[in-house]
Amino acid sequence: MKKPKVIVCPSPLFLKTLPVKGSIVVVIDILRATTSMCVAFGNGALEIIPLESIEECRAFKEKGYLIAGERDGKMIEGFDMGNSPFSFMGEHIKNAKIAMTTTNGTKCIHASKKAHQILIGAFVNMSSIIHYLKSQQRDVILLASGWKDKMNLEDTAFGGAVALELENEFTPTEDSTRIAMTLYEAMQKDKRFFIKNATQYDQIMGLNIVEDVKYCLRRDLHQVLPIYQNGRLVNLIPKTV
Amino acid sequence: MKKPKVIVCPSPLFLKTLPVKGSIVVVIDILRATTSMCVAFGNGALEIIPLESIEECRAFKEKGYLIAGERDGKMIEGFDMGNSPFSFMGEHIKNAKIAMTTTNGTKCIHASKKAHQILIGAFVNMSSIIHYLKSQQRDVILLASGWKDKMNLEDTAFGGAVALELENEFTPTEDSTRIAMTLYEAMQKDKRFFIKNATQYDQIMGLNIVEDVKYCLRRDLHQVLPIYQNGRLVNLIPKTV
Repeated sequence: MKKPKVIVCPSPLFLKTLPVKGSIVVVIDILRATTSMCVAFGNGALEIIPLESIEECRAFKEKGYLIAGERDGKMIEGFDMGNSPFSFMGEHIKNAKIAMTTTNGTKCIHASKKAHQILIGAFVNMSSIIHYLKSQQRDVILLASGWKDKMNLEDTAFGGAVALELENEFTPTEDSTRIAMTLYEAMQKDKRFFIKNATQYDQIMGLNIVEDVKYCLRRDLHQVLPIYQNGRLVNLIPKTV
Repeated sequence: MKKPKVIVCPSPLFLKTLPVKGSIVVVIDILRATTSMCVAFGNGALEIIPLESIEECRAFKEKGYLIAGERDGKMIEGFDMGNSPFSFMGEHIKNAKIAMTTTNGTKCIHASKKAHQILIGAFVNMSSIIHYLKSQQRDVILLASGWKDKMNLEDTAFGGAVALELENEFTPTEDSTRIAMTLYEAMQKDKRFFIKNATQYDQIMGLNIVEDVKYCLRRDLHQVLPIYQNGRLVNLIPKTV
């Protein structure tokens, strides 16, 4: 039997060169949108509506939604939450409906609309993602959101990490996939790789989000599988905590 | 003194996100356009005109030019040369004027027109490139042509190799640069990395260009520095052979 393909797409710019239609796309924005989405579902959120603009998001406030988002890594005035995973923990998240706008992640979800399914992936739900993808036996595109269309280390590395786990049952396709796998292997060998090499290091320090970064790089904290359905994200796996 | 930047741009798609103006852009198409350009100058070619279309290229035949090019890795009917480095060696190249069209490399040259200078880089002239870049102390963009806008191993790895050599005197900028450097380091540790992992491996075997590939991955065979000036490439370093 022919194995399905696994592709790491290292920036949304490449999406147009890939066979999105019919594939499962996993949107990746480790710092911090997709991590925070997983945390929200892990804490009992009912749904998350991903939105492009601040204005669209703000309009959901009246409808009883919590509104969340950031621009250039900073909170937006009048919003309930920013983009830190720690702001998606606690009682206020349980059964909450959330409207969220982010710089990169939301854009990728909207750019993947032709996909068979769109999932949300991060290190914090990595095993849930891998387990599900293996059960589906469909072509997979691991879509690194990057930063303003540029590649970044953490999203590319996560794509590589998932591709490495799928390698036996899927066929890694495209040189970008091998490059991402090689990056993750290098990061595994040197635990300080990310902090030494991330070009956004100064930004991270400036925004005072070191604890966020540490959290976002931890694996399997939440057994959740956020999936995009009818304009919103819901959780395919009921929370187990 | 502030060090100049070195950036690996892993596909022409990213060029619009980078500060091309004022930078020196090194166009990289290891398999096989930029390698063959270096070989041509190493064998005494006077100039190479890079062109987008087959028709433009064909028109230069009447003006006494040798015409060269490929489409999808195959020779074009009526052309003097394809894209193999071996076809740019020998007496017919000495003092020749060449018009050349290629799938990816030419496109990158034209996309870089706002740069301070455009150079042609390949493993076969790697030391000439590095020596020149160090002498200029200007921001550098190492532009991997890739394959139909996608990233490929060999162009990204060459970008990484040059960035590693420049690292002490330049500041590597952008996560893509670190990713390319990591890729080249991995390839150095495993000499069979490229042949094991290149997605175009089957294509290479099908086109019967294994010898071309071996040649294209060899370092410093030609002390040449092709530079784009007034619509054509000329050699800044007179041939020494």
